[in-house]
Amino acid sequence: MGSFKGHALPGTFFIIMGIWWTIKCILKYACKKHKRTSYLGSKALFQRIEIFEGIVIIGMAITGMLGEQFITGGPHLALYDYKEGQWVELLSWHHFTMYFFFGLLGVANVLCFIINSLPTSLTKLMLSNALFVEAFVMYNHTHGREMLDIFVHQLLVLAVFVAGLIAFLELFIRTNITVELLRTSCILLQGSWFWQIGFVLYPPSGGPAWDAMDHDNIMFLTICFCWHYALNLIIIGMIYAFVSFMRRVQLRIKANYFDWSP
Amino acid sequence: MGSFKGHALPGTFFIIMGIWWTIKCILKYACKKHKRTSYLGSKALFQRIEIFEGIVIIGMAITGMLGEQFITGGPHLALYDYKEGQWVELLSWHHFTMYFFFGLLGVANVLCFIINSLPTSLTKLMLSNALFVEAFVMYNHTHGREMLDIFVHQLLVLAVFVAGLIAFLELFIRTNITVELLRTSCILLQGSWFWQIGFVLYPPSGGPAWDAMDHDNIMFLTICFCWHYALNLIIIGMIYAFVSFMRRVQLRIKANYFDWSP
Amino acid sequence: MGSFKGHALPGTFFIIMGIWWTIKCILKYACKKHKRTSYLGSKALFQRIEIFEGIVIIGMAITGMLGEQFITGGPHLALYDYKEGQWVELLSWHHFTMYFFFGLLGVANVLCFIINSLPTSLTKLMLSNALFVEAFVMYNHTHGREMLDIFVHQLLVLAVFVAGLIAFLELFIRTNITVELLRTSCILLQGSWFWQIGFVLYPPSGGPAWDAMDHDNIMFLTICFCWHYALNLIIIGMIYAFVSFMRRVQLRIKANYFDWSP
Amino acid sequence: MGSFKGHALPGTFFIIMGIWWTIKCILKYACKKHKRTSYLGSKALFQRIEIFEGIVIIGMAITGMLGEQFITGGPHLALYDYKEGQWVELLSWHHFTMYFFFGLLGVANVLCFIINSLPTSLTKLMLSNALFVEAFVMYNHTHGREMLDIFVHQLLVLAVFVAGLIAFLELFIRTNITVELLRTSCILLQGSWFWQIGFVLYPPSGGPAWDAMDHDNIMFLTICFCWHYALNLIIIGMIYAFVSFMRRVQLRIKANYFDWSP
Repeated sequence: MGSFKGHALPGTFFIIMGIWWTIKCILKYACKKHKRTSYLGSKALFQRIEIFEGIVIIGMAITGMLGEQFITGGPHLALYDYKEGQWVELLSWHHFTMYFFFGLLGVANVLCFIINSLPTSLTKLMLSNALFVEAFVMYNHTHGREMLDIFVHQLLVLAVFVAGLIAFLELFIRTNITVELLRTSCILLQGSWFWQIGFVLYPPSGGPAWDAMDHDNIMFLTICFCWHYALNLIIIGMIYAFVSFMRRVQLRIKANYFDWSP
Repeated sequence: MGSFKGHALPGTFFIIMGIWWTIKCILKYACKKHKRTSYLGSKALFQRIEIFEGIVIIGMAITGMLGEQFITGGPHLALYDYKEGQWVELLSWHHFTMYFFFGLLGVANVLCFIINSLPTSLTKLMLSNALFVEAFVMYNHTHGREMLDIFVHQLLVLAVFVAGLIAFLELFIRTNITVELLRTSCILLQGSWFWQIGFVLYPPSGGPAWDAMDHDNIMFLTICFCWHYALNLIIIGMIYAFVSFMRRVQLRIKANYFDWSP
Repeated sequence: MGSFKGHALPGTFFIIMGIWWTIKCILKYACKKHKRTSYLGSKALFQRIEIFEGIVIIGMAITGMLGEQFITGGPHLALYDYKEGQWVELLSWHHFTMYFFFGLLGVANVLCFIINSLPTSLTKLMLSNALFVEAFVMYNHTHGREMLDIFVHQLLVLAVFVAGLIAFLELFIRTNITVELLRTSCILLQGSWFWQIGFVLYPPSGGPAWDAMDHDNIMFLTICFCWHYALNLIIIGMIYAFVSFMRRVQLRIKANYFDWSP
Repeated sequence: MGSFKGHALPGTFFIIMGIWWTIKCILKYACKKHKRTSYLGSKALFQRIEIFEGIVIIGMAITGMLGEQFITGGPHLALYDYKEGQWVELLSWHHFTMYFFFGLLGVANVLCFIINSLPTSLTKLMLSNALFVEAFVMYNHTHGREMLDIFVHQLLVLAVFVAGLIAFLELFIRTNITVELLRTSCILLQGSWFWQIGFVLYPPSGGPAWDAMDHDNIMFLTICFCWHYALNLIIIGMIYAFVSFMRRVQLRIKANYFDWSP
């Protein structure tokens, strides 16, 4: 993962999931408000969507796990090199572990909507678990690196931890749309911050990395993190406006249809 | 912002907003208790007040943002000086970012009460976001400064963080007046502490700043912070008494009116 | 306060209040369970008790404040010595501030049960405020002291902070007896730990203080803190048993009385 | 406890309790869902089980306490050696204290289901107390040891603290099965991590302990902790599947029985 691509890949995954969860959450809220217009089959439809979502997450996790293991220089499933007497590529195993827990989330997602007797809050639990594990591993990930490197990863840990905390709180208290959108905004923030880390530490233009000892770089990345967040809030606002607009168009078409029907 | 005025301006903003929110909160509580005496149009009135409040907040935020950018020695919207190869006036950009998030709060306030389909908890969310961002930026704001400077800013971060935390908790649990007053007391504390910071670091009398290396100054500022809080609690108590008194007078006048009416 | 007496006084106050709150809380729980046997006037009685409690707390706070100010070597209400150019006895002012906030708690207690329109949760709020302020001041209280001194005060801060946190959580969520007893156990722990600090730092026997640099002393005080807590839990259990027993006796006497009455 | 056995013993206790609580929690959930099939005496049965559970916990605690005291090299109930002028075997007293609080949990468990007037949340309270005390003592347990030793104990503290936090939150909010399973997963994690500590610090094969100064060992133990957790989640999933399967078999047998009965 010590490359631009290694940071862009999880970044892209999180951005996709963040946008998708935002859309799903807004759609559910809109459907709840206009109950009368919901299709008969909408519950079955949502169930199928959830299962599909689970499969996509599993796919992403497996992509990540295989990529970490079998990339050039990866550990190729070897954990301990008995000849050399040392651990093999522990950082790749770190990333492998994080992907694995997101894989568990996908499995829980699929199981939860296939087997009815399972409590639906299981998905939330596995999401918060996956995020907490990610935060925990990331926190213990940068021993002995340089100041800038540690700082950008700490900000990542902050975003991941807050997302996990909100998912954890949702276990206890009945959810409302604001809290869910707050969570997806943290997921989006995490995704876009992964890209930012890639640009800072491994500039794709081939230029040198940023000066890791310059205090001003840290001062700038502090507000850069906030701007990412502001941007993500604005994107969520635009998605909200767009979904609401589409919903209204759909309702109007349907209303017209009923007007025409005898 | 590295001046007395730069600290007095946000301090004044927060004191005004703190007092206003205190009054609004107590009025709402009083209205709820005496439901029968509420005017028919009171809901529409409150809505108009909220929109006005949002516009005032936006105004304050824009004042702050422009002030930070175009003051003498400000960055004038330049972020990176390519000739010198360094960032331009990052501290001003820090303050700019904080004001910007309060601007978003104002926008959310206006949108929330114009568009009915938006959840009303959005305002709370944006308030807690703005406060958390402020705490986060403040926390990363004082790298390499002196002990006293760091300490007074840490106390500010404490007040801001607690206010943000309470606003965040209000998202989850139905509010009651005590919790809301606790939040406004933290906002007031923040405002009066901004003034205190101005007096400590940039004495307006033109005298020298306090000795930044004297432990006794830190010991004193610790209790000074508590006294600010006690003072704010007493001010809130006086506002409460005054509003309750005015309310009772108003009810008596109305009662007399109804007695006179046939 | 830098003496055995200065730690025994607040310790005694907290032990008295802790035991009293425990009894009140258990009595309320018992009364709630056997509603039919509650006196008609019990609500008025409880109100009078609350007011009396408030007055006692105010009395304790004033005792503490005057003691801190006018003891030999105290600041005698002088804050800054302009001749010497230094602060006067800041540690005494620290203690003064803590007592003052408990005085505010007493005032709130009295006001709350005299004026009906005030929300009853105000008492809880002021209690959590007083405890948080105490924890905050204690935390900034031991700059430049020795290891053992800092450690015993940190444990005190822990007990105070947990008590404040529980009082704060009670603001949000409807209370139950277990949580209230947990809070009183923390208050009791604080009281008995004050005594322990007195014995450790200022042995009343006149012997030398404990060796502040011995790691073993810290190891011992760690478990000593837990034993204090265990002891307090057992005391609360005994109070519970005693109150329940007295209650049952009272009910039996009353039942007999009704049997005898025609 | 400074041996492999001293870590294996509490590890085994926690694994047994973790598995048992998992089974109990799933059974209760299954019983609640199929209310009609519950035996008339099931409540009395559960009560007897709880009392038995309490007695087992007391037994475990006493085993641990006696083992710590009377093992070769233990303190044999002596706390202070007046001849040498030093504390006796404080680490054993630390472990003794932790076992003692779990003993209190057992006592509360028994009392709660014998005496009806006690609130049932008392058990939860004592559980969270026992776990918090364990985390607190563990945290202050490793002064002056080596990096690896401190790190593995810190991870233990993390698991214990999270378990305690969840038990504490359950005091406030009505429980659901997901949260309870999360708690038992933390208890299981604690148990299996005790074994891991034993293997790392006191290899039973008699070989040398791991290199305490190798950063790679810490990097590995970070993910090893996550793998323990993943394994425990999978074990809980398997228990869930097994219990659900047995439940279904039982229901089918009963249904057949009713078919046969005239």
